[in-house]
Amino acid sequence: MKQPKEIKTAEGKLGVLLPGLGAVSTTTIAGALLARRGLAAPIGSLTQMGTIRLGRRTDERAPRIKEFLPIAALDQLVFGAWDIFPDNAYESARHADVLEHRHLDAVREELERIRPMPAVFYPQYVRRLHGNHVKKGASKAAMVEQVREDIRDFLRDSGAARAVAVWCGSTEVYIAPAEVHSSVARFEAGLAEDHPAISSSQIYAWACLKERVPFANGAPNLTVDFPAAWELARKQEVPIAGKDFKTGQTLMKTVIAPGLKARMLGVAGWFSTNILGNRDGEVLDDPDAFRSKEVSKLGVLEHILQPHVYGELYGKLFHKVRIEYYPPRGDAKEGWDNIDLVGWLGYPMQVKINFLCRDSILAAPLVLDLALLLDLAQRAGLRGTQEWLSFYFKSPMTAPALYPEHDLFIQSMKLKNTMRWLMGEDLITHLGNEYYD
Amino acid sequence: MKQPKEIKTAEGKLGVLLPGLGAVSTTTIAGALLARRGLAAPIGSLTQMGTIRLGRRTDERAPRIKEFLPIAALDQLVFGAWDIFPDNAYESARHADVLEHRHLDAVREELERIRPMPAVFYPQYVRRLHGNHVKKGASKAAMVEQVREDIRDFLRDSGAARAVAVWCGSTEVYIAPAEVHSSVARFEAGLAEDHPAISSSQIYAWACLKERVPFANGAPNLTVDFPAAWELARKQEVPIAGKDFKTGQTLMKTVIAPGLKARMLGVAGWFSTNILGNRDGEVLDDPDAFRSKEVSKLGVLEHILQPHVYGELYGKLFHKVRIEYYPPRGDAKEGWDNIDLVGWLGYPMQVKINFLCRDSILAAPLVLDLALLLDLAQRAGLRGTQEWLSFYFKSPMTAPALYPEHDLFIQSMKLKNTMRWLMGEDLITHLGNEYYD
Amino acid sequence: MKQPKEIKTAEGKLGVLLPGLGAVSTTTIAGALLARRGLAAPIGSLTQMGTIRLGRRTDERAPRIKEFLPIAALDQLVFGAWDIFPDNAYESARHADVLEHRHLDAVREELERIRPMPAVFYPQYVRRLHGNHVKKGASKAAMVEQVREDIRDFLRDSGAARAVAVWCGSTEVYIAPAEVHSSVARFEAGLAEDHPAISSSQIYAWACLKERVPFANGAPNLTVDFPAAWELARKQEVPIAGKDFKTGQTLMKTVIAPGLKARMLGVAGWFSTNILGNRDGEVLDDPDAFRSKEVSKLGVLEHILQPHVYGELYGKLFHKVRIEYYPPRGDAKEGWDNIDLVGWLGYPMQVKINFLCRDSILAAPLVLDLALLLDLAQRAGLRGTQEWLSFYFKSPMTAPALYPEHDLFIQSMKLKNTMRWLMGEDLITHLGNEYYD
Amino acid sequence: MKQPKEIKTAEGKLGVLLPGLGAVSTTTIAGALLARRGLAAPIGSLTQMGTIRLGRRTDERAPRIKEFLPIAALDQLVFGAWDIFPDNAYESARHADVLEHRHLDAVREELERIRPMPAVFYPQYVRRLHGNHVKKGASKAAMVEQVREDIRDFLRDSGAARAVAVWCGSTEVYIAPAEVHSSVARFEAGLAEDHPAISSSQIYAWACLKERVPFANGAPNLTVDFPAAWELARKQEVPIAGKDFKTGQTLMKTVIAPGLKARMLGVAGWFSTNILGNRDGEVLDDPDAFRSKEVSKLGVLEHILQPHVYGELYGKLFHKVRIEYYPPRGDAKEGWDNIDLVGWLGYPMQVKINFLCRDSILAAPLVLDLALLLDLAQRAGLRGTQEWLSFYFKSPMTAPALYPEHDLFIQSMKLKNTMRWLMGEDLITHLGNEYYD
Repeated sequence: MKQPKEIKTAEGKLGVLLPGLGAVSTTTIAGALLARRGLAAPIGSLTQMGTIRLGRRTDERAPRIKEFLPIAALDQLVFGAWDIFPDNAYESARHADVLEHRHLDAVREELERIRPMPAVFYPQYVRRLHGNHVKKGASKAAMVEQVREDIRDFLRDSGAARAVAVWCGSTEVYIAPAEVHSSVARFEAGLAEDHPAISSSQIYAWACLKERVPFANGAPNLTVDFPAAWELARKQEVPIAGKDFKTGQTLMKTVIAPGLKARMLGVAGWFSTNILGNRDGEVLDDPDAFRSKEVSKLGVLEHILQPHVYGELYGKLFHKVRIEYYPPRGDAKEGWDNIDLVGWLGYPMQVKINFLCRDSILAAPLVLDLALLLDLAQRAGLRGTQEWLSFYFKSPMTAPALYPEHDLFIQSMKLKNTMRWLMGEDLITHLGNEYYD
Repeated sequence: MKQPKEIKTAEGKLGVLLPGLGAVSTTTIAGALLARRGLAAPIGSLTQMGTIRLGRRTDERAPRIKEFLPIAALDQLVFGAWDIFPDNAYESARHADVLEHRHLDAVREELERIRPMPAVFYPQYVRRLHGNHVKKGASKAAMVEQVREDIRDFLRDSGAARAVAVWCGSTEVYIAPAEVHSSVARFEAGLAEDHPAISSSQIYAWACLKERVPFANGAPNLTVDFPAAWELARKQEVPIAGKDFKTGQTLMKTVIAPGLKARMLGVAGWFSTNILGNRDGEVLDDPDAFRSKEVSKLGVLEHILQPHVYGELYGKLFHKVRIEYYPPRGDAKEGWDNIDLVGWLGYPMQVKINFLCRDSILAAPLVLDLALLLDLAQRAGLRGTQEWLSFYFKSPMTAPALYPEHDLFIQSMKLKNTMRWLMGEDLITHLGNEYYD
Repeated sequence: MKQPKEIKTAEGKLGVLLPGLGAVSTTTIAGALLARRGLAAPIGSLTQMGTIRLGRRTDERAPRIKEFLPIAALDQLVFGAWDIFPDNAYESARHADVLEHRHLDAVREELERIRPMPAVFYPQYVRRLHGNHVKKGASKAAMVEQVREDIRDFLRDSGAARAVAVWCGSTEVYIAPAEVHSSVARFEAGLAEDHPAISSSQIYAWACLKERVPFANGAPNLTVDFPAAWELARKQEVPIAGKDFKTGQTLMKTVIAPGLKARMLGVAGWFSTNILGNRDGEVLDDPDAFRSKEVSKLGVLEHILQPHVYGELYGKLFHKVRIEYYPPRGDAKEGWDNIDLVGWLGYPMQVKINFLCRDSILAAPLVLDLALLLDLAQRAGLRGTQEWLSFYFKSPMTAPALYPEHDLFIQSMKLKNTMRWLMGEDLITHLGNEYYD
Repeated sequence: MKQPKEIKTAEGKLGVLLPGLGAVSTTTIAGALLARRGLAAPIGSLTQMGTIRLGRRTDERAPRIKEFLPIAALDQLVFGAWDIFPDNAYESARHADVLEHRHLDAVREELERIRPMPAVFYPQYVRRLHGNHVKKGASKAAMVEQVREDIRDFLRDSGAARAVAVWCGSTEVYIAPAEVHSSVARFEAGLAEDHPAISSSQIYAWACLKERVPFANGAPNLTVDFPAAWELARKQEVPIAGKDFKTGQTLMKTVIAPGLKARMLGVAGWFSTNILGNRDGEVLDDPDAFRSKEVSKLGVLEHILQPHVYGELYGKLFHKVRIEYYPPRGDAKEGWDNIDLVGWLGYPMQVKINFLCRDSILAAPLVLDLALLLDLAQRAGLRGTQEWLSFYFKSPMTAPALYPEHDLFIQSMKLKNTMRWLMGEDLITHLGNEYYD
């Protein structure tokens, strides 16, 4: 038995702050409320449904994760949000049309009490949406201050002991990291002078870091993934994580690509198309917003398959990703993948995958897990980039010197061995030679 | 740096003995011959194409497995086979119609020289095939002796220093392990009295163990997976492995099911159907042969998803597997899977997978890897069941007290950490906290 | 303008009698009730939604069919049923779980008033179902009399002027037409002596014919498709039609096969599998019931593709149809087809079709159309087999000398030209050379 | 028996002139050469493989179309072509990589003798291709004269009695019909002054009409579908047909959409994507070329489903078509369609279609049929737009007052009844009431 990390207890309420009160947020909140009353199961949440194997295979020790780790309980959560529309969480959920009436009605009153704070919203970063429940501020720096005040007000009004934030807003147009993102000092100067490379989501993130609120980023935006943010997070002793929730097609891709690679099967081409009809689809119909998403989605295969190492297998891989706005389906996204495989002696084979999924249903449990695990991380004294949470992201943040791990199974191993390490348990290697001889 | 195992060097030729000289065997042999001349790549073979990461991520140490492990080189292989038809390997490959003429013609002479020894063939175990290139023997015990003599003759004639065997014959009808399989003594008595629960494949395996030839079983038959065989393998210091090559649909299943489970997504139903038109499809059209296959295929989800642990997620999983003989495609097998998922709060989603694969193209690299790794295992002093080779099998053999690991990623981890352990390298846990703080 | 047929007007109420009050029947009834109140559209019903082009393309005459033909209006329908369970139509519909609560609740009272009469049910013909709301009768002949009495009672109680019947019960085990089916006299002797080749559905049909109630058969059973029934129908001047509603996979097959044939594309193989979880799936899990269905489903391609005429294209077609009971989906049936095409010079291509359909949603409009069109046929003086209704059936009944037409487009042409002929309009040939020169 | 049309006999050789000697042309030519030697079957060609039913169903008269109609025989064909590359037909076919070596080698010499004449090629209409085997001309009018000379030379050198032309070149950028296309006089003025709305394909077509060579257009370009061309065709007594070969996804669409409509099933959305890697895919990667194709592909559903008539069923149909350049597959195009259906009472269903097809394999038989049928049309005295050939086109040309028929089955009916009418046979209506009563 190794030494466990020292972890502060999860006393009091935990505020969960969500920039963006749309389909994902309301599905998350409604689900947490239903689950804590026992009205529905938080399926897809590793912290709520999962177990963790400890010791040897024959020991049969596999506690529930929520009992193994000192994370906050669902009962302890209180929710807050910002949005560009003034609808409360019930109204927004009805509009999103993800959950059935029977589910929303069961927690209607609690949802109605959640009214969004006015949003920071510079329309040039999300061009297809138009809302007017927005803050006015003299500068981006002033906006940061307003968000900080919102956070303090929220903590006071809700009685929460501490908070975490998870970005559930839209995808912003692609912004490459620039000089202004290179240090805390430069970024703060940029805020003061309304630098165009500082988008709305970066303003939220910066305010959270200043208030020592851990921050996870569910979109492909920069938000909290640039040197100045890393620096501030370490200085403030705040854990951060991102970016872009791994759901739908990319989730399947990071399951299947590692399988093909484990077996050293070649891939000549991978064509992926998506049809989706929700607000996300509408936003991504803007080519500049799609560009953010595309960068996030295309990197996955490159990192998993390592064409520079396996030139014969993956050196000529043609990878194309499309997202098509298709209103008839609403939130019920659909992915279609065609994979051209290369087998023994070069013989071709094909795999087609058709995933009839639901965007918010897949994202909601990730929001919940990230809130609980980032809060745990902070109480355990972890700070800065939390690579062990790569499991949840399409485009995981890492230390600058490292390549990201996209393989879902490596990510899962990393996540679970980090849990074991936090609690002083032996790491698992699956060697298992002790059972023989 | 840990202490590596002591491993005898791979000197001299290695005989690869294949009971069954059909599509899989001839595709394997032709491929090995082509690959060693540089005429085609042995894609799908981990030993030939793979690398293994050693040390820290930033060390960038990732040698080729074939250079890291002291396995035999392709140049050192010589092939032998048994079959119920007298066709040589070239004729049989032409008939199987898997490889193109340009590939077969390039190694035609070498293939023609491989003529099968007469088979042990009791037709009641494989009812749809009828061949007459078969041994006659007074009893099953006498059959064992004839196969032993074949092995000794092969070693002498080919000049091989040692041999390994991989079962590439047909699926036999389902046989449950019985009293006769419970000890070496009882099994040998059964051989003498022609016990009906001793099938042809068991006779080959027994002969190999007696001759200290490591044995891998590519079909779902009992063959080498029963207490008497385990006992003999340990006594004779021979490594064994099985059973049923993991290819096609089951390969995909053991990739996707772990992914769904990692994310704690529920599964309400999984329907799998296969269409295939080769000799394998014809054999499996016999319900009793299909029964062997079905047992092998159905266990996979049960073990990966653990419904006893995750009742809410997998407790009601309805799993159905069908194999349909469909001649138009020949060896180009096709799988179609429908998976009914259950997400957050119980909302349904679906995944469909259509795998246009090729049976022998997927199996051939497994035959090669198993031959090379079993030979290595024997030289490293390993004996009995080699659980670390689970990676290659639909229905992995394990120590009696253990449940099998079906998750391809756990199997891959086990395989690679065993390789590291054999060579005295640090095991990999993917914790990676050393890169932070 | 030709002479239209003389057709009696559709005065008074029309009784629609449904043997079997399960998913299909209740979906039909609820839909008719909703549609007549304007609460939902009777989509899929040609009589309600369709138009018919008359005259030249440039005339722009295309009246609604329900205005063109003197068929009964939805307001005029009254429903009756028999079933082996005593549940009323509302309870049965809830159990079938096809329609949403909001739909059923809107017509709940009307549905609750529809209580099934006790069924004729000899369990040997439908072995997987067990109900006890059944008639007791001294003989099959006595059963016929009881059903006739039911019909007369229903007409009296409901005030209906006349009635039609549509078989919506389960598929019975396969019965080949035998001597007992060869004439009215022999059949009536068979009824008296409880002949085993006379099943429950035949008893219903016979009673209907005796009462001059037109009868359509939605299952693949013999029911009303044998010489004695043909003879009786003509004698009694009753129109009859069948058999087996064309829905789901077979519907798609009779759309796609004619398309391939029109283009003279060859077909080497066609593999069809279905997964379904409703009562129908359960019944078809009995191999003898499946046999009825299989005969009905396999004939389709043979008749459309004419392998005896087009030997090079279809002479070696391998056609396999599977139905798999798969409870997770309930009534939401799913079909998967793989078609192996042969093109120019013999080059292969493939089509895969995945149909996520709903059994009762596809069948309900057929029940409605058949009731209305058979009633029209009777008022127009048509009697015996109505081949022009082939459009609705997997296995259309024809005059003995004729082959059935399975091509949906020929069937549609036949149906619409018959409508034109009934009303004295010019038939359409699509020649259209009058628009040029 | 009606009076047949007077048709000149098909004496002498028939020249088949193909602008564009790429994948489609060489596949057509090689196939015709192989078929006439009996080395492969011209599958997909209605004229070569089809039969036509005459008289009543019970008459069993169904002659081969090639025996029924006085069309030219394969033996009578001689081929000519133009192309922007100088490769002969064998070299071009090898490069296209559609047919196997065994097929090309069997007719190699004949293919090698077919050397393309230099092309008319203004690169602004096909921007992704660059060839230098091109004509130089003082003006577009001069280009017309050069092509006319080519035609006369070809007839003289080949000894052909007459010729037909089929456009097998690339898709040009979208050009809307303009003033210059409105009359023969204006068009000829436009030729003289190099009007930018006159593309290369229009020049070929104009030259053919001048030489009284019937012309079919296999691409979505204007080419021969504008008032000036219609006028000239009628004046010169030349039949013309177009446009855009109906192959692949659109072929399936015009099979399935009529099936859905026949059954009055609603369609809420239809998403179609294509992946293809040949020269066609490369050309269509240019958005302006794709625009031509998109117009051609999108019109199909609008015309078949008639949303203005069936507002409830098709009024909100969302239709999206994508073509994606994806090199790994070469000529082996793949389509994926998702159709969102609406059934009884508005309940949703889905159909997915995955078509693994081959572009040139599907197009080649259309080229052959069109050549033979246009030649027949000319000999039968037909001139101008041949609507009865709509069967072969994505975007059929019609008389100005008419809407096009896209339904493959109406097209097939029109085609076959026109054949019957030409030969004085009764038209078929599928009424068939003569078999009853």
